[in-house]
Amino acid sequence: MPEYRAPLEEMNFVIDQLHDLPGLAAAIDNEDANAELLAAVLTESDKLANQVWSPLNWPGDQQGVQLTDAGVKVADGFADAYKQYAEGGWNSLCFDPEYGGQGLPFSFSMPVAEMAQAANMSLGLCPLLTTGAIEAITAHASEALKATYLEKMIAGEWTGTMNLTEPHAGTDLALLKSTATPADDHYLIKGQKIFITWGDHDMTENIVHLVLARLPDAPAGVKGISLFLVPKFLVNEDGSLGQRNDVYALNVEHKMGIHASPTCVMSYGDNGGAIGYLVGEPHAGLAAMFTMMNNARLVVGLQGVAIADRAYQHAVAYAQDRVQCIAPGRSEVGAIIHHPDVRRMLMTMRGLTEAARAICYLNAKHIDLSHHAATPEARSAANKLVGLLTPIAKGWSTEVAQEITYHGVQIHGGMGFVEETGAAQYQRDARILTIYEGTTGIQALDLVGRKTLGDSGAGMASLIVAMRADVSEYGQGLSQLQLDTMVAGIDALEQAYQKLLSESAEDPMLPGAISYDLLMLAGYVCGGWQMMRASALVTSHDNQDFAANKQATSAYYLEHLLPRFKGHLASIEVGSESLMSIAPEAM
Amino acid sequence: MPEYRAPLEEMNFVIDQLHDLPGLAAAIDNEDANAELLAAVLTESDKLANQVWSPLNWPGDQQGVQLTDAGVKVADGFADAYKQYAEGGWNSLCFDPEYGGQGLPFSFSMPVAEMAQAANMSLGLCPLLTTGAIEAITAHASEALKATYLEKMIAGEWTGTMNLTEPHAGTDLALLKSTATPADDHYLIKGQKIFITWGDHDMTENIVHLVLARLPDAPAGVKGISLFLVPKFLVNEDGSLGQRNDVYALNVEHKMGIHASPTCVMSYGDNGGAIGYLVGEPHAGLAAMFTMMNNARLVVGLQGVAIADRAYQHAVAYAQDRVQCIAPGRSEVGAIIHHPDVRRMLMTMRGLTEAARAICYLNAKHIDLSHHAATPEARSAANKLVGLLTPIAKGWSTEVAQEITYHGVQIHGGMGFVEETGAAQYQRDARILTIYEGTTGIQALDLVGRKTLGDSGAGMASLIVAMRADVSEYGQGLSQLQLDTMVAGIDALEQAYQKLLSESAEDPMLPGAISYDLLMLAGYVCGGWQMMRASALVTSHDNQDFAANKQATSAYYLEHLLPRFKGHLASIEVGSESLMSIAPEAM
Repeated sequence: MPEYRAPLEEMNFVIDQLHDLPGLAAAIDNEDANAELLAAVLTESDKLANQVWSPLNWPGDQQGVQLTDAGVKVADGFADAYKQYAEGGWNSLCFDPEYGGQGLPFSFSMPVAEMAQAANMSLGLCPLLTTGAIEAITAHASEALKATYLEKMIAGEWTGTMNLTEPHAGTDLALLKSTATPADDHYLIKGQKIFITWGDHDMTENIVHLVLARLPDAPAGVKGISLFLVPKFLVNEDGSLGQRNDVYALNVEHKMGIHASPTCVMSYGDNGGAIGYLVGEPHAGLAAMFTMMNNARLVVGLQGVAIADRAYQHAVAYAQDRVQCIAPGRSEVGAIIHHPDVRRMLMTMRGLTEAARAICYLNAKHIDLSHHAATPEARSAANKLVGLLTPIAKGWSTEVAQEITYHGVQIHGGMGFVEETGAAQYQRDARILTIYEGTTGIQALDLVGRKTLGDSGAGMASLIVAMRADVSEYGQGLSQLQLDTMVAGIDALEQAYQKLLSESAEDPMLPGAISYDLLMLAGYVCGGWQMMRASALVTSHDNQDFAANKQATSAYYLEHLLPRFKGHLASIEVGSESLMSIAPEAM
Repeated sequence: MPEYRAPLEEMNFVIDQLHDLPGLAAAIDNEDANAELLAAVLTESDKLANQVWSPLNWPGDQQGVQLTDAGVKVADGFADAYKQYAEGGWNSLCFDPEYGGQGLPFSFSMPVAEMAQAANMSLGLCPLLTTGAIEAITAHASEALKATYLEKMIAGEWTGTMNLTEPHAGTDLALLKSTATPADDHYLIKGQKIFITWGDHDMTENIVHLVLARLPDAPAGVKGISLFLVPKFLVNEDGSLGQRNDVYALNVEHKMGIHASPTCVMSYGDNGGAIGYLVGEPHAGLAAMFTMMNNARLVVGLQGVAIADRAYQHAVAYAQDRVQCIAPGRSEVGAIIHHPDVRRMLMTMRGLTEAARAICYLNAKHIDLSHHAATPEARSAANKLVGLLTPIAKGWSTEVAQEITYHGVQIHGGMGFVEETGAAQYQRDARILTIYEGTTGIQALDLVGRKTLGDSGAGMASLIVAMRADVSEYGQGLSQLQLDTMVAGIDALEQAYQKLLSESAEDPMLPGAISYDLLMLAGYVCGGWQMMRASALVTSHDNQDFAANKQATSAYYLEHLLPRFKGHLASIEVGSESLMSIAPEAM
């Protein structure tokens, strides 16, 4: 089974030429962040991904995790692989130097995160969750909590979790029931949480849980939810570990994929109450949790890119190697990569992966700008674009990852269905991506609701202006057909959101009915936008083979993938009527 | 977990009103085959599926199969469930009464097969393969072989297998190496076969393998392949079982799905040679094998319909039950089925499933007509349509089954990713359907090659004439938008195959490059054709609720699903250039 190799030349192109991340570093006044550093980061990160994390991916899937009396035991080799990651400083790249972080822009962490997720998505989930917890603590916790927890978490010595879901409260957090009762300087937390990723494990000596629960005087609904920090082991004043807290993994789920990532049922307070500390204001827990969810959503989108790229690499290697049938235009039996239908699948995988990567890295760049750009106007504009791009980066990248990993199996034929080949694992692992951190439906509702109806389409209008400007600037090299499709795609996005704005008042079903199609339409069009830019910008690349292949992929995307917007537009245009016309009890 | 129930009202509608299968029975001169019999068949078959086969589906997935010293041991309860199927006469419905069959038209077996596959696809594969073997023996074997094997196989007392694939010879059977050496009145078979479905098991006392191998004087390539019958136990003159033959399962594959169906590596002749008997003429094995593959391809398409329907039923039940969030237009938290985006997924599942069922049953009807219609012209016309419909029924139905089972998981949210829920199994099981019995790519090449280029588009032209006639006859009840989309879809199919005919000579890559998109385009358009017919024909249905829901599903299909043809057409129109433009070694 081929090990993962990071697509360094592609990553460097996206970073340098497509999105100018080193330039961004100057714009946000961080002189440590330059192109040389980034190139060094990529090279070293690839080594860890390739040599340490990737070889454990399939064995980890086969072995899975195990709940023992002493807690969750993870797959062989994972603890050491995680330790190498933490000790290499990979966990701390973007965090506050005051707590031991390296202070780099968030977007600089994207290639590192992509490599980690591609090499081993199950293991990669552990730092992904830790990062979210660090962000929430940094933004909302007291100085005392920060002083106690941040340094260890940023160093990767302790990991973090997010505890939202309860059996009856998944997407609908208003329904959650876990309670927090004041006691001395802390709270006693009671309740059961499910789907807690890396909720327990034996890789580090402590785990820091962030838990949503209700205070005794909490109003009903989402306005009565508070956020608490609940460590697995209490921390003494001197920083050493104290008593075991009353929080335990009751069960680990038996899942379709990410077998090596423990998904735990967590029980808080079975023996009187787990000691927890309030993070942020009472009843303001949801907002605090969303602090960590926004970046997490982008990184889940990036997981889609990562596993897509790995599936592509695996499929290319097989297609180059597997000899079967005489391809058209050839006289002898040869590798299946010569067959046009196999090439179609590979090009589709490649085109969608590159487009999704461009969108995710663009999103990350604007997260940095939203925090650090020079003027309030620039920060606000960046923040607006982040708002729009995040549901697209998460929703669309993970949806196309389904198709890409599916093609990966398909190219292997019967061997793809056999687990030993490894292609099936990518499809099984990828399956969670459109579900966790908010399903595609939730991303789509966020896009049509808060992000479009919520600002009367101002953000969408700006995005469309930006895309049209780029068509003028970068569209000259396209064929007339490619250009026409790009223009039509942007027009379709405008038509779609205008319909949303003008008809939602009279048809309350419309936003939900067209939300998925609008998300997918936006994804394909944003992908086309970035592939068009890439095709123009790559002309100055040092490696002319790389440039030619990027332009070929861009052409394939604009000709064969972008036209899918037409089906989505047609579905949007017709509205909600037939979609809602069978009674729920008659389905 | 809800058990599968056959959609009897829908099946009866498709059988009676949409395709008039009882009327077909008269046309093919089989007075035993009437509507009453068919209704009774459906009711009884549903009982077996619901009460016996369906409850074993998930336990079978979890337990899997096991290779022991005594051979393959299948999951608990499977042997008894299979026995009930055989003893109930379900295996013998359509076979020759001379050998104990019931002589019903092939199309009458479709609902029974659909129920079996929906209830338990792993178990359903066993009779599927047996049926193929029976068909090949009936069509090609000597009277002596027929006398020895057919009655037991038709009764389901012995099962059958198809042995084509070898490690180096999958799609490309020209590469196969297994040998057959003449010895007395038989042959000695040697070689290794892989991916042999139900290649060994402990459910019946004998297994009849049909094996492709080369005679000593065989020419190279596919014209040197012969077909042999190789029983697990030799059969004595009196019909009793004799010595164990030299054929053994070496291994069972560890697969992504259909865990309860043993997929075997079979070894022939490790101890001197397995005794086999020639079926048909020397070197004509491939044609004989295709006798059994054609119907098998349709039934794999039907497996797509079956598992799609089961996934739909499961998702509806969950969506009606799971309470989460306040849907638009409502004042309280309620079941998620009230949310438009959930309804979109359910309607997509429903629309695609009903369209695929209509196509598969239409295909089956024309298989009967191709054998038994009154005139040679009618038989030939039916045969032509079968040729076109089979790759569509197999390719498109199994591709949409991927999407449908994917939505089934998605509607369950996080619970869908957890195996205990059962939704994930449908997606994992369905994954094999676009691979075995010829991948989607092979179906697509069959459609563009032998079935379109091969007859200069005559079959496609006839199909389009038939569809346009039906638009005139059945299109009046459609909205203008639905009608326009249907007409545009048919025009697109015409445009696509005309491009294929006119440009393939100058661009040898074109057929392969556009084959998948042409297959999918044809599938969506044929689905629209049948949903349009259904919408008109259902007006006379006794149950007006059923009629209204069928019309709503048809409207949804024509408005939201049929427009997908536009993306496929755009991809076809642009041809092969960018698809082939990256060198294989540079991917």
